[in-house]
Amino acid sequence: MPQGVPASVPDDGLTTRQRRNRPLVIVHTGVNKGKSTAAFGLALRGWNQGWRIGVFQFVKSAKWKVGEETAFKTLGRLHEETGEGGPVEWHKMGEGWSWSRKAGSEEDHARDALDGWREIQRRLAAEEHDLYVLDEFTYPLKWGWVDVDEVVETLRTRPGRQHVIITGRDADPRLIEVADLVTEMTKIKHPMDTGQKGQRGIEW
Amino acid sequence: MPQGVPASVPDDGLTTRQRRNRPLVIVHTGVNKGKSTAAFGLALRGWNQGWRIGVFQFVKSAKWKVGEETAFKTLGRLHEETGEGGPVEWHKMGEGWSWSRKAGSEEDHARDALDGWREIQRRLAAEEHDLYVLDEFTYPLKWGWVDVDEVVETLRTRPGRQHVIITGRDADPRLIEVADLVTEMTKIKHPMDTGQKGQRGIEW
Repeated sequence: MPQGVPASVPDDGLTTRQRRNRPLVIVHTGVNKGKSTAAFGLALRGWNQGWRIGVFQFVKSAKWKVGEETAFKTLGRLHEETGEGGPVEWHKMGEGWSWSRKAGSEEDHARDALDGWREIQRRLAAEEHDLYVLDEFTYPLKWGWVDVDEVVETLRTRPGRQHVIITGRDADPRLIEVADLVTEMTKIKHPMDTGQKGQRGIEW
Repeated sequence: MPQGVPASVPDDGLTTRQRRNRPLVIVHTGVNKGKSTAAFGLALRGWNQGWRIGVFQFVKSAKWKVGEETAFKTLGRLHEETGEGGPVEWHKMGEGWSWSRKAGSEEDHARDALDGWREIQRRLAAEEHDLYVLDEFTYPLKWGWVDVDEVVETLRTRPGRQHVIITGRDADPRLIEVADLVTEMTKIKHPMDTGQKGQRGIEW
């Protein structure tokens, strides 16, 4: 439970209230499980506040589907029907971004990733969501498909009050620098160490 | 994305399938955010599989309420109405456990915590849930309100296929020993370091 006691009060000219409501860039990195799961958990929290949730999964396969996708689509439909929570959009690179006429191209993931980022830039400029989940987004950055400095600059100058969560291993130091909250999911113990494969409901 | 490649294949007499479907004890510990959030994210995944979800929050205050509580109650209601996902029960120590006639006692958290654990033991024996979230349960253990060895023994001998997730700082080494999957949420950076307090939708 957060006790709400900051370690220090900075001389940044902001009131406590202004500082409290600053939008956050959040990074979940590290080698163990929990990066995406915790991001979707936060999105659930945001949904409950009525936030407009935008999930962008930078995964290569259209077949890859986590349970959260169905659950969030259900919550989004519920919002449309009853007004509870907030609206949800869930986009996946592997099946071809929904806004794109192009099918997901097996041969050019780099182009697909950049297309996804361009759309996110456009939405950030237009303030279309209150919370963005850029799932597995560290990989296109790592592989040079999307320029890290450009991402950092876009995040730094984004208007309004938009929270952005980025997940994936090996987060670039520049991304960590621009982030407000960075958690590393450190492996203490994993079932695969003892020969157990992933299972439904736990891994996806 | 799990690649499903175990580090080694143990000589435990189990088939891959049997090993894959072993129920897990999962511990989320460490000082940073994401422990409970990732647990609720996993519960969302389980809900989508139709699992019977039981959340037990070992928090002292009845006022403490995370957004996930409302979202999960909504999902549980949806299950009752449409059959989607699984049933959800959400119990909180601070408001007096719902199965108890006693109100939450401001004066005796130790007794309340033990009452909660006894009920969880009973449910594990009866196989009432497929996934248990014991949120902030490391604290009653740390403070000696609930006996760690007894918890370990109960988890080790639980019947059937019941997953148990335990969250909180300072997980006891015996708990880590009995767990299959342990993630430590390590702090790299936190907004409170720069004087920012917790905010709605992010912290709760």
